Amino acid sequence: METFDTGRHISGQFNQELDAVRNNVMNMGGLVEQQLKNALTAVSDNNEELARKVLSSDYKINLMEVTIDEECTRIIAKRQPAASDLRLVMAIIKTIADLERIADEAEKIAKVALEQFSAKQQDLLLNLDNLGRLVLTTLHDTLDAFTRMDFDAALKVHQSDNRIDREYEALMRQLMTYMMEDPRSIPSIMSVIWSARALERIGDRCQNICEYVIYFVKGKVIRHISEEDVPGIF
Amino acid sequence: METFDTGRHISGQFNQELDAVRNNVMNMGGLVEQQLKNALTAVSDNNEELARKVLSSDYKINLMEVTIDEECTRIIAKRQPAASDLRLVMAIIKTIADLERIADEAEKIAKVALEQFSAKQQDLLLNLDNLGRLVLTTLHDTLDAFTRMDFDAALKVHQSDNRIDREYEALMRQLMTYMMEDPRSIPSIMSVIWSARALERIGDRCQNICEYVIYFVKGKVIRHISEEDVPGIF
Repeated sequence: METFDTGRHISGQFNQELDAVRNNVMNMGGLVEQQLKNALTAVSDNNEELARKVLSSDYKINLMEVTIDEECTRIIAKRQPAASDLRLVMAIIKTIADLERIADEAEKIAKVALEQFSAKQQDLLLNLDNLGRLVLTTLHDTLDAFTRMDFDAALKVHQSDNRIDREYEALMRQLMTYMMEDPRSIPSIMSVIWSARALERIGDRCQNICEYVIYFVKGKVIRHISEEDVPGIF
Repeated sequence: METFDTGRHISGQFNQELDAVRNNVMNMGGLVEQQLKNALTAVSDNNEELARKVLSSDYKINLMEVTIDEECTRIIAKRQPAASDLRLVMAIIKTIADLERIADEAEKIAKVALEQFSAKQQDLLLNLDNLGRLVLTTLHDTLDAFTRMDFDAALKVHQSDNRIDREYEALMRQLMTYMMEDPRSIPSIMSVIWSARALERIGDRCQNICEYVIYFVKGKVIRHISEEDVPGIF
């Protein structure tokens, strides 16, 4: 197991300002995770109030993204970081963009809780919930890998995305069959489909964040390398 | 009309390296535009060969993104740009990430050309083509605004995204009706739906790029400000 202690890199050029930024990213990550958790609970419990809370809280995350982004640009201009220090700032800038979009996807999911579903359709929401819990765990592990800048953890999460894709494909086939059997349900099912798609996209964005962690630790971009070839390049 | 001549800003700190990077972004943009154009033509002409060409060309764009990103990081480390110079580099880093994802969406659209559609479904592809042409124009205008770092042009494109959203919603309603009338067509229609969604997302990413242009020119982030309030802040 290989775990990077970013503290070793921070000494010298990197100052308390950057520590503060990293803390802000973690706070932002925690809030995004809570938003996704609330959105999924709102859907599974048919909790309209919680869904509205998700929708009314999104502005906080938007604000955090803008603030952290500005803070990073200010640090680059003022501190002129190089090497791994600069890689860390770049990783943060990219991570917050993905976190903000994950929150947007959570918002889309929360909106589904505001719709009415028949008893039969509630079963489908249960399947959505399974995919949701899997994605929530992935997000949690991603944020954990980011917090510790842990290469092994990031690589592990990166490679687990296949499972999300498989669950997503299975759910999608199920939803299509359901639509074919009961065409009147199509508009409702389409809402579930958009939520499933939102979850699948959150999985992709978690992958992105893991790529930034790997880039920070190893200085290598793995984005466009096929899954099987990734372990070989380190 | 207010058009920024970035050349004025480049003198001094900004050097030929950065000019070369901007040229690379324009080349990348041109290639992405070509990919989208080819993907749409492949779908409307049912041209399998062209679709495969789109799929086999995507690696070039991935490579360009990684190269330009590394080049930008190197420029920050070596040149230590500040103020508008730094904003330009940040705008480029973010723009290429969106361009690369636009190319990914084009790839998804091209895949639809590899599927078989009935004569009736071909009509739906025609509607997809209308949305496609609108998005292609938007991408073209976005790249144009980026090339000239033209605030007015970027703002104009940014505000035209409503039209894409409206066309997309109309198409989506049409596709849903079609599915309800002929449930056997659901799997094929879903492919068209994913393509429509891909086009809508390209529109969003064009908006992002316009936001970076506006950020570069004005130093202000408009991402989370409502459409009506945007003109008021300048």
